[in-house]
Amino acid sequence: MTASAARLDTVRSEVDRSIRRFLDRQRPLVSAPELAPLVSATEDFLSGGKRLRPAFCYWGWRGAGGDDDPAFFTAAASLELLQASALAHDDVMDASDLRRGMPSAHRRFQAIHEKAGWHGSAEQFGEGAAILLGNLLLVWSGEMWRTSGLPPAALAAAQPVYDYMRTELMCGQYLDLLEQAHGENTFESALRVALFKSGKYSVEHPLRLGLVLAAQGLEPWIDRLCEGYGRNVGIAFQLRDDILGVFGDPAETGKPAGDDLREGKRTMLIARTLAAASPEQARQVRLTLGDPDLDAQGVDRLRGIIRETGALGACEEMIKNYLDDALNSLDDAPITPEARSALADLAVAATSRRT
Amino acid sequence: MTASAARLDTVRSEVDRSIRRFLDRQRPLVSAPELAPLVSATEDFLSGGKRLRPAFCYWGWRGAGGDDDPAFFTAAASLELLQASALAHDDVMDASDLRRGMPSAHRRFQAIHEKAGWHGSAEQFGEGAAILLGNLLLVWSGEMWRTSGLPPAALAAAQPVYDYMRTELMCGQYLDLLEQAHGENTFESALRVALFKSGKYSVEHPLRLGLVLAAQGLEPWIDRLCEGYGRNVGIAFQLRDDILGVFGDPAETGKPAGDDLREGKRTMLIARTLAAASPEQARQVRLTLGDPDLDAQGVDRLRGIIRETGALGACEEMIKNYLDDALNSLDDAPITPEARSALADLAVAATSRRT
Repeated sequence: MTASAARLDTVRSEVDRSIRRFLDRQRPLVSAPELAPLVSATEDFLSGGKRLRPAFCYWGWRGAGGDDDPAFFTAAASLELLQASALAHDDVMDASDLRRGMPSAHRRFQAIHEKAGWHGSAEQFGEGAAILLGNLLLVWSGEMWRTSGLPPAALAAAQPVYDYMRTELMCGQYLDLLEQAHGENTFESALRVALFKSGKYSVEHPLRLGLVLAAQGLEPWIDRLCEGYGRNVGIAFQLRDDILGVFGDPAETGKPAGDDLREGKRTMLIARTLAAASPEQARQVRLTLGDPDLDAQGVDRLRGIIRETGALGACEEMIKNYLDDALNSLDDAPITPEARSALADLAVAATSRRT
Repeated sequence: MTASAARLDTVRSEVDRSIRRFLDRQRPLVSAPELAPLVSATEDFLSGGKRLRPAFCYWGWRGAGGDDDPAFFTAAASLELLQASALAHDDVMDASDLRRGMPSAHRRFQAIHEKAGWHGSAEQFGEGAAILLGNLLLVWSGEMWRTSGLPPAALAAAQPVYDYMRTELMCGQYLDLLEQAHGENTFESALRVALFKSGKYSVEHPLRLGLVLAAQGLEPWIDRLCEGYGRNVGIAFQLRDDILGVFGDPAETGKPAGDDLREGKRTMLIARTLAAASPEQARQVRLTLGDPDLDAQGVDRLRGIIRETGALGACEEMIKNYLDDALNSLDDAPITPEARSALADLAVAATSRRT
């Protein structure tokens, strides 16, 4: 195992431990037997995962002089609850059946209803329960963050960043819905959605939170690093996500092959495909993209077009360029050498991942 | 205007002012033109309303010695954002078309999609946008509460109450979903749902928040008052809600006549109806309750059965008894005479309301 992989493992196990501790603390509040399915759903949705957001937060914290500290790991781990909340709601909004190879939250609750033969619509029950699961995770994420045990001055300095991140997440997801419904699907609009829907809250804000918590304030160099490194890694992270949504291996992503094509996601990959497509290719894409019944053959045909137009290669090239820019902006950041090297590794891991 | 109505009006206008001020403060964060429909939805969903929750909070605060203070009104007004969030999500979960006589949030966004002729499912767009609207209101409610400007010691004392209220709200709504899907619809289960889904977070917790904010701690008499007064008013409040859901005048409630019957809500009113029904009446209720296509005639027939079985009278009697118990427990609470009289008026207003 490389030193960098070992470091990621350490963060992951500390984050796991913090989450278990927090859930144990909450358990007495949700001990009524009827709530058991809701509680076990929170546990399952919080297990596994790459813990990338806490890792960016951690290396920000360490980079600005923070020590390993259980209170910090609790604060950083709260980002996983926010993310789990967003995923539960996302899957309702996208009507997705799978998440990490398991039934999505609403399908899980729907199955409970169907199996028990309750009355009313199982689908409506599933959606309602998934909305509430997401809400519970959302309020718990804020509570976990606030009660982490970090010094009040550190939390107070970082709170505006935290609040802004959550507002931006909800607004970014709304922009994503708009883009799917009537977007122009230009390079510019695809990039904007990539940045606001996911990039910022996956990389830039977690990193900024870690830096501001440790520095107990937002200094100019922090903003420079977050923009130069965080924003570039964030966009590259989402571009990788877009590629995995079309070309990912279901055994690794835990999602059906070509799921984004069936959902009609208007990503940079699609924008570049349409920009370079022949009239016949463009017709094919427009005809089949977003068809919920698109079969394996249809997915293959679309993949072929995305490759042939050079869109796949262009997106890989973009990822490489954003990554290079990100790595360059690490050079003059006044952070510890260890953090610089870990953030470089993390940028590569986040943008070359296969899941 | 009576003194008590005048007092309620004062609270309402201070709460309105606080909400406007908070929304003005947030506006720069959501200034992108595409976000305008989301922003105007937050404004519309936060206008009007009876402001009952802030009023309970206010009289707790005043009762325990708090002064009129813009910071307090901001904290209390944040309860309206939490409530608006719950309503936006509730209407998605119940597939309700109307809220206060206007389209519910998801129908509002669905109409935007339909009118513009965007692609994809307008219904799915509407639901997704309403989920995000609810999320935005939920995170803003916590932010508004926390940044109200109240002294840190007061906020710290009340924070556990606030956190508990939010967890309980999500769990209470889940219990409500369960009760609709497979509840035994006993008096006991109906009472439990009434208490956890709505009663506690509408009355008991807002009152407790006000008391704890002013006392900067949770003293035994506060718990006694919250249980004796708050819990009883809370249950009576929800029983009134159940009656309005069946017998309310659409011109006043802003919901279609008999909406709860069409949704098949398993309330105390229905539990009492079934317990006292003849076999033929019970058959009729079971056959038509929860039928989304139930017409005006069907609603009238069910209303007739609910009246004839004495269930309506029994629920009115329950409301009266809960109200009496609540008023009695005001007697020995060590609060100001003004607060005692205002809480008595408020209990009557909350349980005899027509909207």
